[in-house]
Amino acid sequence: MKEIESVRESGGYLNRYTHGEMTFSVYLPPAAKDRQVAALYWLSGLTCNDDNARSKGGFQRFAAKHGIAIVFPDTSPRGDDVADEAERYDLGQAAGFYVNATQDPWKPHYQMFDYVTRELPALIESNLPLIAGVKSVSGHSMGGHGALICALKCAGEYRSVSAFAPIANPVNCGWGEGCFGAYLGDDRSDWDVYDATRLVQGGARVSDILIDQGDADEFLHQGQLLPDNLQSACDAAEQPCTIRMQSGYDHSYHFIASFIEDHFEYHARFLNA
Amino acid sequence: MKEIESVRESGGYLNRYTHGEMTFSVYLPPAAKDRQVAALYWLSGLTCNDDNARSKGGFQRFAAKHGIAIVFPDTSPRGDDVADEAERYDLGQAAGFYVNATQDPWKPHYQMFDYVTRELPALIESNLPLIAGVKSVSGHSMGGHGALICALKCAGEYRSVSAFAPIANPVNCGWGEGCFGAYLGDDRSDWDVYDATRLVQGGARVSDILIDQGDADEFLHQGQLLPDNLQSACDAAEQPCTIRMQSGYDHSYHFIASFIEDHFEYHARFLNA
Repeated sequence: MKEIESVRESGGYLNRYTHGEMTFSVYLPPAAKDRQVAALYWLSGLTCNDDNARSKGGFQRFAAKHGIAIVFPDTSPRGDDVADEAERYDLGQAAGFYVNATQDPWKPHYQMFDYVTRELPALIESNLPLIAGVKSVSGHSMGGHGALICALKCAGEYRSVSAFAPIANPVNCGWGEGCFGAYLGDDRSDWDVYDATRLVQGGARVSDILIDQGDADEFLHQGQLLPDNLQSACDAAEQPCTIRMQSGYDHSYHFIASFIEDHFEYHARFLNA
Repeated sequence: MKEIESVRESGGYLNRYTHGEMTFSVYLPPAAKDRQVAALYWLSGLTCNDDNARSKGGFQRFAAKHGIAIVFPDTSPRGDDVADEAERYDLGQAAGFYVNATQDPWKPHYQMFDYVTRELPALIESNLPLIAGVKSVSGHSMGGHGALICALKCAGEYRSVSAFAPIANPVNCGWGEGCFGAYLGDDRSDWDVYDATRLVQGGARVSDILIDQGDADEFLHQGQLLPDNLQSACDAAEQPCTIRMQSGYDHSYHFIASFIEDHFEYHARFLNA
């Protein structure tokens, strides 16, 4: 990995790296000067790359306060030789959906689940002052879905998980059906292992789930997010899950910025325990 | 004025308005539901419009905390019939420099000093829950220059002034010379009334000045900002002025986000006194 940018923020450093064709960012808090720190992985949503959340989320001040690194992966493989649907924002590049594709033309590069849960942690834990294996995960929209499935599928590997407006039941919404059909094929039974609601129904468990959801979110009203399905599955399975419906908030980073402080406090309790 | 967007953030509302050809944003904190509030005007830098700071600065949480509105004007007149230098980022649209132009083709629309100190306050104080005349001003780079000259030229009208990496002595730097020459003409004596350093030397006073400046700022090293000239003028004039050199910080919004909390606390002491 190669550092291509380093910007000081809130006493630490917001760094950007390339590794092969991939670009990602890591915020190292001031505490990382003297010791290894835990990491919160932030998975972004459709159309984003590693820059959106680090520029618009207001995260870094809270990472600095709690002494936690933030890892900002990209949202898909990138490069001229990587399959894409240039006319669509919701399939292909910037829409990797955090799954391992099994179908052509996606299969060769679209292995984002392995990338965010295995390849990237191994790479950065051996190159940066991070405590190996001490990590949590959060994300927004498609990335909220990603955060939930990372935690649910990798039992015990993430200390905590939260999400903002996650796509909570992708097998039952348009965005999920489009991507899962393309990346995973027509057999819908193959989709369930990447669906948070289905994973809970199938017995996957985490210690707790914290979700914020705006009630003025246009994608909630379009039926893309389906938090009630996840809540019902968690209730039936006695999986702890708190979904806070936030009055008047939409799907934007202004919504995320309004509640990110709570999420850092939540994750810090687990990461710094 | 017409509201074209309203997004909930930190308990208040981030609204966007149009007035004629101009677009601006105002953040109304939760306190504005029940009473009139004071306002901090934020003047942005070259290439920006009203959206940059509201999306990247992390301001709104502190405005909410202190019960202060934030006014985000645009950085120049806009529109197809407005003069521009499309090939240049540092002259014309998005580079109004907060002066009243006296030269063609700029003179008809480039009256930004009057816009931000007179026209816009009158408009919004009669349409929004703002306390008439209770305002402070801050800004970044070209907008830091703007903030300083607004406060220095309008004695007593702004309760407090601060700036991030301001163009502190524009008559002596490339950016300032380019814009002042175009907007104000070749007679450099006409430029001094829009130069913070010259205004202080000429006797203008404010109660206090707070400035943050990164010492890794490329534009500082290029000689565009010249904070030492302002400090020297203030020292000679016994004008209170605190310029905090911040080690390792650059010219970006990551720098602003790192210190904006201090600036809100500073302005709140004056605005909520």
